[in-house]
Amino acid sequence: MTVRITALRARDIRFPTSDQQDGSDAMHTDPDYSAAYVVLETNQPGLAGHGLTFTIGRGNELCVAACKALAPLVVGRTLESITRDFAGFWRALTSESQLRWVGPEKGVLHLATAAVVNATWDLFAKSRNLPLWKLLVDMTPEELVAAIDFRYLSDALTREQALEILHANAPTKAAREAQMRAEGYPAYTTSAGWLGYSDEKIRALCQKGIAEGWNHFKIKVGADLRDDLRRAAVVRETIGAQRKLMFDANQRWDVGEAIENMKHLARFDPWWIEEPTSPDDVLGHAAIAKAIAPIGVATGEQCQNRVVFKQLLQANAIRFCQIDSCRLGGVNEVLAVLLLAKRFGVPVCPHAGGVGLCEYVNHLVMVDYIAIAPSLEGRVAEFVGHLHEHFESPAIVRAGRYLVPQAPGYGVTMKARSLEDFEYPTGPVWRRRAERAGAAVK
Amino acid sequence: MTVRITALRARDIRFPTSDQQDGSDAMHTDPDYSAAYVVLETNQPGLAGHGLTFTIGRGNELCVAACKALAPLVVGRTLESITRDFAGFWRALTSESQLRWVGPEKGVLHLATAAVVNATWDLFAKSRNLPLWKLLVDMTPEELVAAIDFRYLSDALTREQALEILHANAPTKAAREAQMRAEGYPAYTTSAGWLGYSDEKIRALCQKGIAEGWNHFKIKVGADLRDDLRRAAVVRETIGAQRKLMFDANQRWDVGEAIENMKHLARFDPWWIEEPTSPDDVLGHAAIAKAIAPIGVATGEQCQNRVVFKQLLQANAIRFCQIDSCRLGGVNEVLAVLLLAKRFGVPVCPHAGGVGLCEYVNHLVMVDYIAIAPSLEGRVAEFVGHLHEHFESPAIVRAGRYLVPQAPGYGVTMKARSLEDFEYPTGPVWRRRAERAGAAVK
Repeated sequence: MTVRITALRARDIRFPTSDQQDGSDAMHTDPDYSAAYVVLETNQPGLAGHGLTFTIGRGNELCVAACKALAPLVVGRTLESITRDFAGFWRALTSESQLRWVGPEKGVLHLATAAVVNATWDLFAKSRNLPLWKLLVDMTPEELVAAIDFRYLSDALTREQALEILHANAPTKAAREAQMRAEGYPAYTTSAGWLGYSDEKIRALCQKGIAEGWNHFKIKVGADLRDDLRRAAVVRETIGAQRKLMFDANQRWDVGEAIENMKHLARFDPWWIEEPTSPDDVLGHAAIAKAIAPIGVATGEQCQNRVVFKQLLQANAIRFCQIDSCRLGGVNEVLAVLLLAKRFGVPVCPHAGGVGLCEYVNHLVMVDYIAIAPSLEGRVAEFVGHLHEHFESPAIVRAGRYLVPQAPGYGVTMKARSLEDFEYPTGPVWRRRAERAGAAVK
Repeated sequence: MTVRITALRARDIRFPTSDQQDGSDAMHTDPDYSAAYVVLETNQPGLAGHGLTFTIGRGNELCVAACKALAPLVVGRTLESITRDFAGFWRALTSESQLRWVGPEKGVLHLATAAVVNATWDLFAKSRNLPLWKLLVDMTPEELVAAIDFRYLSDALTREQALEILHANAPTKAAREAQMRAEGYPAYTTSAGWLGYSDEKIRALCQKGIAEGWNHFKIKVGADLRDDLRRAAVVRETIGAQRKLMFDANQRWDVGEAIENMKHLARFDPWWIEEPTSPDDVLGHAAIAKAIAPIGVATGEQCQNRVVFKQLLQANAIRFCQIDSCRLGGVNEVLAVLLLAKRFGVPVCPHAGGVGLCEYVNHLVMVDYIAIAPSLEGRVAEFVGHLHEHFESPAIVRAGRYLVPQAPGYGVTMKARSLEDFEYPTGPVWRRRAERAGAAVK
């Protein structure tokens, strides 16, 4: 059967999470977890590709508009013409001769690229009736590498070096796949440590986390050092000395401030400090990493593309590589960064949470472990317990581990009812809020 | 009088420049020079602030939408409340708690920020009946520095260091202002070397340029080395050994390729190679700079923000700093980068051309020379002769020098007729093109 993409629909889906301060941090004080949601319709009944990019509310409409701007590059194409030269398709999207000016490969346009590219992979996996991770780990090294655009990477990773990594792992893939099916992939939780939560709530959530089998706990810092010290003490006291504690400053500090503040926070034995400063500051992260070792620097959720990840690795600026599944330009670029990280010996600990990110990441960690970086040392994928109920096949975590996804596709297909209810601004949830706000004004 | 901003209007203005291949390069083969055009209306009759951000066609609608997303942060404010704490205003725009996720400080959102911020400065200057450069050079060092957000800069430039630079120059400002009024600021032309032009057209344009008094000539390279060598030979032969020749690769090369290709192109004695690789690759530019010295590396037209410029300077990656007046987030961030460049001893040679960029740059070079970096050595501002007829007070170049702007404001106020004719897609120019295209299809 020839699968042809007949339409690209992009929808603005928002959840009013700011009501509970879920997800609040030093920079993002009132996030409404949102998605620019893309459906690639096809000529085959019942077959469509679903992808999303995650945002936190205002600005989601810009990503939706950017998805629509990319539509002419996708609509009318056969799936086979895309998958036959997936790197070429990715290059066409990211190098469109006029559009690239408003990127290139960053911000609104690249976030939108991720939604469209991931929808294409979802379509590919569904057309084969496979979960995405399984489609990817069953590819030959040559097939996998053919999906990667190596432009701007060759000083750090060539096609040949990528093939070498994949060939070395190929003979043992089956054993790791069996292990993942039996054990799952280690996760950590950020549900306990949002900045808007009280000490009592944090303590209770840590206790609950321990009971559920979590061994890594992350809290937000960066708004006020005294407050950070107090909250860190609460968490360390509650989780004990053995479990890992991580800090996340969400870009709040300058380089010197980060080094100074981490001197004070070091007493709580943190495993990593995440986003200590601007996500664009490779050299700044390198300076911080050098100054605060052995505490590790982690970053990536706002790292705009593979070129910045390449430099973070080249500069020894990160000890943990936190790829984001839809800030990078979709699966193709994620694969490039997984291979880069492997080459530099840096573990990948994906950013997740938000809406849909856990569902994406669940696939990506399987690909990383089975095909690219065959180790679990220092590796742990973020998990946050919000909003999974909106997905047809949500990510499942048991006793602190992501279970292997079973459903065909890339995991972010939302329930039709959720799409209707939370469409912005016309869905019933947002209409009711607007009416309430109107009533309150009167 | 209290000036209050009562509305923000954003319009999609596009010029069909791709018809003539004006502006074509190795990455942007068919640019339609465009502007997301912002008007800040006020409560004062006849007083409005005009700003624009430059794009090359598709995607301009995303910048227009992003300008509208920023409107709630501007509309309703008094001009005085903004100018009293201009750095705070800039921080509010660039750190909006939800919007920043789709940047931060890069791509569509930051391009839009530039249009809005520059419109604010235009309004400020018009309210004082001064050209923007004059408003700025007459500020005290303390007033100027109060417009700069030093977040993420303090490891390279502190407020105190910025003040020191400005105070050192203050006593001699008047002499340099008089010099600029008498002589103008040195410029160079890119009009000769677009990739789509024939050798004959290039030769003729070089001869015309020499006759007009130009001493610097830039040509596009990067699509094909043999073609580049041939065209470089034409230009060098035509302009002679004494005039400066610059190359612009528009990001076409990987790091190793850039070094290799520049070995071949070195025989034409280039002054700089511009955008040899990805605009995001600080370490790559540093490696190229080291390998090809004494040829200088230049970049900046797609350098997303002050944090990347900071690193380019820290890493000795550039010998020429090519700020862009509306890719950086407007005047406030431009001032930060001018001061950074001065601190690192690197000359600023602004990117211009497009539509409106020469009009902006005309002001910025005056501020740089008079108040910040009091030298003309190695300094030359880009000039391209397109589309100036659409501005009420266009930039004027005579004998290879930008003349001092005279009209109040920041120079990009377009003629009402041009705005009407070229509005996309509803203006008559675009309606006629759509009709012609429709007729051609039938």
